[in-house]
Amino acid sequence: MCGMQQSRFRYRAVARKIADHIHTGRLAPGTRLPSVRRLSRQEDASITTILHAYELLEREGVVEARPQSGYFVRADPDRMPPEPKESQPPLRPAYVEIADTVSDLLKITRQGDYVPFAAAIPASELLPVRQLQRIMAAISRRTDDAGIHYDLPPGNPELRSQLSRRSIDWGCRLGPDDFIITTGCMEALNLGLRSVARPGAVIAIESPAYYGILMTIAGLGMQALELPTHPSLGVRPADLERILKRRKIDACLLAPNFNNPLGSLMPDESKAELVELLARHEVPLIEDDIYGDLHLGETRPRTAKSFDRKGLVLLCSSFSKTVAPGYRVGYIAPGRYFEKVEQIKFMNTVATNAPCQIALAEFLRAGQYERHLSRMRESLSDQIQSAAAIIRDTFPAGTRVSRPQGGFVLWVELPPGTDSHHLYNRALENRINLMPGLAFSNSDRFRSCIRISCGHAWNDARRAALAKVGGIAAELAPKNSAGKKLAKKKS
Amino acid sequence: MCGMQQSRFRYRAVARKIADHIHTGRLAPGTRLPSVRRLSRQEDASITTILHAYELLEREGVVEARPQSGYFVRADPDRMPPEPKESQPPLRPAYVEIADTVSDLLKITRQGDYVPFAAAIPASELLPVRQLQRIMAAISRRTDDAGIHYDLPPGNPELRSQLSRRSIDWGCRLGPDDFIITTGCMEALNLGLRSVARPGAVIAIESPAYYGILMTIAGLGMQALELPTHPSLGVRPADLERILKRRKIDACLLAPNFNNPLGSLMPDESKAELVELLARHEVPLIEDDIYGDLHLGETRPRTAKSFDRKGLVLLCSSFSKTVAPGYRVGYIAPGRYFEKVEQIKFMNTVATNAPCQIALAEFLRAGQYERHLSRMRESLSDQIQSAAAIIRDTFPAGTRVSRPQGGFVLWVELPPGTDSHHLYNRALENRINLMPGLAFSNSDRFRSCIRISCGHAWNDARRAALAKVGGIAAELAPKNSAGKKLAKKKS
Repeated sequence: MCGMQQSRFRYRAVARKIADHIHTGRLAPGTRLPSVRRLSRQEDASITTILHAYELLEREGVVEARPQSGYFVRADPDRMPPEPKESQPPLRPAYVEIADTVSDLLKITRQGDYVPFAAAIPASELLPVRQLQRIMAAISRRTDDAGIHYDLPPGNPELRSQLSRRSIDWGCRLGPDDFIITTGCMEALNLGLRSVARPGAVIAIESPAYYGILMTIAGLGMQALELPTHPSLGVRPADLERILKRRKIDACLLAPNFNNPLGSLMPDESKAELVELLARHEVPLIEDDIYGDLHLGETRPRTAKSFDRKGLVLLCSSFSKTVAPGYRVGYIAPGRYFEKVEQIKFMNTVATNAPCQIALAEFLRAGQYERHLSRMRESLSDQIQSAAAIIRDTFPAGTRVSRPQGGFVLWVELPPGTDSHHLYNRALENRINLMPGLAFSNSDRFRSCIRISCGHAWNDARRAALAKVGGIAAELAPKNSAGKKLAKKKS
Repeated sequence: MCGMQQSRFRYRAVARKIADHIHTGRLAPGTRLPSVRRLSRQEDASITTILHAYELLEREGVVEARPQSGYFVRADPDRMPPEPKESQPPLRPAYVEIADTVSDLLKITRQGDYVPFAAAIPASELLPVRQLQRIMAAISRRTDDAGIHYDLPPGNPELRSQLSRRSIDWGCRLGPDDFIITTGCMEALNLGLRSVARPGAVIAIESPAYYGILMTIAGLGMQALELPTHPSLGVRPADLERILKRRKIDACLLAPNFNNPLGSLMPDESKAELVELLARHEVPLIEDDIYGDLHLGETRPRTAKSFDRKGLVLLCSSFSKTVAPGYRVGYIAPGRYFEKVEQIKFMNTVATNAPCQIALAEFLRAGQYERHLSRMRESLSDQIQSAAAIIRDTFPAGTRVSRPQGGFVLWVELPPGTDSHHLYNRALENRINLMPGLAFSNSDRFRSCIRISCGHAWNDARRAALAKVGGIAAELAPKNSAGKKLAKKKS
């Protein structure tokens, strides 16, 4: 499995290495890159791998191919819009007040007839639909009553065994009895929050954060404290440490692996430091790892949980982004809060539905998950890249765009002063749906941002729709930047 | 459908009519009952129906057959132990403190190797296992991606249509858009509570009440106010009115149709009065109707919701007791709180699992539900009756037992001073599981009570187990009543 994964993604590692050399200046603009054959020997990689790597860099606008001459570092290698700026939220906890606004946005999302850039839902063609239906049919043909009865908490034993085996990939060695199966990741986060904190408690989160998390905190009567968040490195432990010196935080709820909407990835050292810091202050960490398996880099990143020595990390995830959103099967590995979580799970929904637990256990047991993930990640990577290219070519100058390390959304910061809620309404008029920035913070600091989901394959209509959003953004951007398209910067 | 239901259950109505005549004294002990043939003409019912009615009354110990002479009212027609007394809880709201105790009890229930008198779960042979599995297999054979994607709130449209059609049986005329599908009834109750009340709020409940409700109130940081509850008539509106004059109640959470554990049924006039009273005080009623379809009398009782004119009743139920516990599909018709409930549903679990929603919609659409229910109710009725007979014959004098009008549990009040937790532990030693009374109240007023689930068919081992419980109860009952078995009262 591991070898296959490596070969599939090897070209990306090579591309990243070259891109690093370019960004740090070791390869100057205009430099000719090694020939495909030479680099193939140098990197001990196949010709195809090197070709794929160069093609990827070309698509990203970092290198260019010159006929008969080979590949060269572009004179303007940084043609992609810059990353969004690091957020600087006000460091005050506050009761979340955006739940009604977000509910209104979600109502639109439930209607099917919009170009779907809003919800972070993977399209059917990315999901293992036929395999799952075969498994479900096989289960239903069994003569016993499997699926009819409660799979009471902690949940289906075979599924928990499979999770235990997978946890090695996350840097953990969790046993089947460390898990409680939940009704999706959202219930896992709810149970986590309810186990470690009470109404009024202060929960530290990333900024921007997934609106579902903000709503959940609101629904539980807790307060959110938004943390400064780097667009690609996530929360910096040093920032959190400074805050912890000044005020009490009851719990953290973070997505070290691929914050939604940023796609940021906390480096391993930061994760270790974070867990150590929180342990010193006895603050529990609810770790949202729902996008962890959708890494776009070569390796599956470790979880913060893997550094947990005190049982203070409650790892939450699900199969909703990777296998079947409709199955509503997630899990939590709640460390020292196991009993409490199990109790609240019973109070909340008694048990998780049995047929889908059985089907997922079977899907994992049959070894189909890794193969599926590998294909899915490749598609998502391409879809994100295409979206980024369209944004580069059609959005106004001054636009910034995230470089997601995982997941499948792009976070786009429009030129300062652009009202993304206005943009959202104009997009709706054009039957295009997207998520405006106000959904991702309680402090309304992302008025000029939008989130674009890349869960669907690109076709002409969708490309035109995203370009249309860019056009509207250009109209709405304040005068000093409006009209100047990024693309026009091309020499 | 209705006609078939009527003929199946007609004998019960006839039996109840005769029993009424006996209990009110219109038919004195020793009186000879009309011949089967004559009563058949009189009641315009078949010979079989009358025979079944007499047999039922005989099993209940109300009449006796004398060879060659016919049926006679027994000299001791009230041989069944009396009903439990009406509860008189302290009328003070309090934070619920039994969650940990109940969690410990439930852990035992999850272990399979006990005689299962504890959990109120219907046995497989009562459930339409084969029909469901056929439906699930058919769905899985479809080539589209049904079941893989979110059925976002309010949930599967076909299932909501079916619920709308069924709601006429509940005395309501709810439309498909009045429903939100939930992860079982427990989530429905949670959403209801969270929509109408905040932490610290006072929730009026029956006493005894289902431990899941007590735990949910505890988990949400709310207070419970236990109401006096009649063992067969439920809560009396007059009692509630008296309390409402003295203190604020934020919401009521009641099961007018078949409180668990009492099986009590509020008469229609009481329901109407209750709804009217609460409307006057603007107090929402969360109506737990999970046992509503498992009426043991001839007709499906109306819901309190059917009297609701102000949208203040939030009707909650599920298919967990009637079709498939493991499917985790329930619903709420939340009246004026629809938007709030929909929002909290999203925060809590996003959506209910799609495959089981589709399967249940199909099961209802195919018209299989009523036929199934009719069979199931008949089995449950027999199982309850057998249990009551064993209790009559083997439990100590001074025992009282409920006359459930629906559902499938018996509430047994042991002679005063009998410690049912002690009994519970002794039963466990004998590999018998049951629910001790302390789980059903926050005020520990049911120390001498136990709940016996009749969800499984009786066999010799189970009969012996229940008799064993009776034997232990006799040992544990305080001296003045111990040893005297009810059965010995027989002349």
